[in-house]
Amino acid sequence: MGSIDRLFEAVAGKGHVCAGLDTAAEHVPPYARHGLSDADAVLAFNRAIVDATVDVVACYKVQIAYYEAMGLAGLAAYSQTLRHIRAKGGIAIADVKRGDIAETAARYAQAHFSGDFEADLVTLSPYMGMDSVEPWLEAAGEKGKGAFVLMRTSNKGMRDFQSLEAAGVGGKKRLYDIVGDRIAELAARHAGACGYGAVGAVVGCTEREGAAEIRARYPGVFFLIPGYGAQGGAARDAALLLRGGNGGVVNASRPILKAWQEDLRKSGGDERAVTFASATEASRRAAVEMRGALLAAAGAGA
Amino acid sequence: MGSIDRLFEAVAGKGHVCAGLDTAAEHVPPYARHGLSDADAVLAFNRAIVDATVDVVACYKVQIAYYEAMGLAGLAAYSQTLRHIRAKGGIAIADVKRGDIAETAARYAQAHFSGDFEADLVTLSPYMGMDSVEPWLEAAGEKGKGAFVLMRTSNKGMRDFQSLEAAGVGGKKRLYDIVGDRIAELAARHAGACGYGAVGAVVGCTEREGAAEIRARYPGVFFLIPGYGAQGGAARDAALLLRGGNGGVVNASRPILKAWQEDLRKSGGDERAVTFASATEASRRAAVEMRGALLAAAGAGA
Repeated sequence: MGSIDRLFEAVAGKGHVCAGLDTAAEHVPPYARHGLSDADAVLAFNRAIVDATVDVVACYKVQIAYYEAMGLAGLAAYSQTLRHIRAKGGIAIADVKRGDIAETAARYAQAHFSGDFEADLVTLSPYMGMDSVEPWLEAAGEKGKGAFVLMRTSNKGMRDFQSLEAAGVGGKKRLYDIVGDRIAELAARHAGACGYGAVGAVVGCTEREGAAEIRARYPGVFFLIPGYGAQGGAARDAALLLRGGNGGVVNASRPILKAWQEDLRKSGGDERAVTFASATEASRRAAVEMRGALLAAAGAGA
Repeated sequence: MGSIDRLFEAVAGKGHVCAGLDTAAEHVPPYARHGLSDADAVLAFNRAIVDATVDVVACYKVQIAYYEAMGLAGLAAYSQTLRHIRAKGGIAIADVKRGDIAETAARYAQAHFSGDFEADLVTLSPYMGMDSVEPWLEAAGEKGKGAFVLMRTSNKGMRDFQSLEAAGVGGKKRLYDIVGDRIAELAARHAGACGYGAVGAVVGCTEREGAAEIRARYPGVFFLIPGYGAQGGAARDAALLLRGGNGGVVNASRPILKAWQEDLRKSGGDERAVTFASATEASRRAAVEMRGALLAAAGAGA
C-alpha cells in the first residue's frame, strides 16, 4: 500500500495529529538526559515518545535541521529515529524541504526514500519549478512513497513571495494558488486508492482567510498543516483545511515534545520528578488532547 | 576576513571558476576506485581534485544531494571534503538550498556554519520568505560566513514560478525581480569591504534575456552562476552576469569531474590508462581552459 493510502487510513483510525519530532537536547527532560551525549539523548527521547504515542497519532514529522545541527552523530540519531518510527508501524515524514533539479533531485529521492534516511514521505520546496518536484514522484511511485510540496506556509514571511498576486494568468491568483494548481495536477496523475494523490501540499493553519477556499479547490490534495499551537493556529482553523474528517494531518512539535515542562512546574522545579516515563506520558496526553480538539472541530465543521 | 571578501579576492587572483563537486562514485575513474567503497572513492577523488585545482579555481561548490544519497557514510565524505577544501585554503560553498523558518533556520545555520559540516557559504531557497533567510545572516555575521539565495535558476522549471509577473507592485516585475530586490536590501545591510554583500544571489547563465539588466540592477550583489556547459550556458552568457571582471563565480561540475573521460576515449577504453593523477590533471586542464574562456569573455564585455 502506498504511503498516502496508509496515511489516509491512519487518520481515519487514529485522528489528525502529526507529532513533530523537532527534537533538540534541551527538549529532553534534564534528569533523563544525564550522562548521555546530545544525539543519544535526543534519540532515546524520540524512541520513548514514539512508543508512547504511536497508537494515538497519525504520523511523525521529523525536522532534519535539528539533527544536522548536531553533525554526523545527529544524523545517525535522525536515521535511527526514522527507523524506529517505521519499525513500530508509524508513518515518518522527513521534513527536509528539498528543492533541486533533475539528477540532483533524483539523488535526493534516493537519499530519503531508501537506505539510512528512508522515510515514507518528504517535504519539498517548489521555488525552482516543477522539474524539482517531478523526479521525486517517479521515485515515489516505484517505492510507494509520497511528498508534500510547500504551498502556503504558516510563517509571517509567507506574505513576502507566496502571497504575491500574479499578472496575466486569468483571474486573481496568488503564487500559492499557482503552485497549488500544479500540485493538484500532479496529485491527479499520482492518485492513491484513497482518492488523494501521492503528492500533497503544505498549507499552514495560521491564516483563516482563504483556507476554506483552498480546501474546496483541491479535493484530491492531502494537506500537511503546520502552525498549530505555538504559531497561533487553533483547532477550528486547522479544521477548515480538513475534508470529511480526513484529508490532512496537523503538526504540533513543542506541545508534544515539551509537555513534561508542566509537570516540572507542578513539582516546584524538581528535575528528578520528570523521568522518561512521565515525560512521554505527558506527550501522550498532549497528543490525545489535541486529537480530541481536532476531531471535535472537524466534526463541527463537516 | 569575511567569506565574501575572501571570495572577491580569490576571483581577482584566480579567475571565476567554481568547481562543482557533485561527485558520485561513477564520476571516479573505474581503475582508481577499485577496492574502495563508494563514499571512500568519492572522498579520495575530491581530495585529489582539490589538490590539483586549488590554485586555479576561485572556490568549490559541494552539492550535498550526491553525498546524502550514500547515507551516513556519504555525509562523512561530505564533511571530510569540506574540511579538505578549507584546509587547503580553498573556499567551500555548501550547495544545500535550505529554506526553513525561525528556529529551524538557526539550527540549519549552526549545522552548516560550524562543526562537521562547516562551509564558508551556503545556498538558500527563498520560497518561505525572508524570515527563512535572515536568521542565516545573523549567524553569518558572527562567523564571517555568507549565503547565496536562489533568484533566477538555470533549469527549465525556472519558468514555472520564478518568471511569473507580479500584479500591483508598480511596474513590470517578475518573482525573481522581487526576490532579487529583497536580496539586494539584505546585501546592502551586510556589505563586505569588497562592496558586495555577505548575501548573494544564484543567477543562471542559461537565459541571456534580461541578464545584463539583472547585473546592472544589483551592483552590490555577488552572483553564483550555474548552468555553464552541460546546461547550455557559454562563457559569453556567463560574462553578462560578471561585473568589472569580478562580481560572480561560474559553476561547472561535469566538465571538471569527468574531464578524464576524454583520456579514456583516447586510450581506446583502457581503464588502466586513467589514474587519479591523470584524471585530476585532466580536471585541472578543464578548469584552466574554462577560466581562460571566462576571462576572455568578461574582458570583451567590460
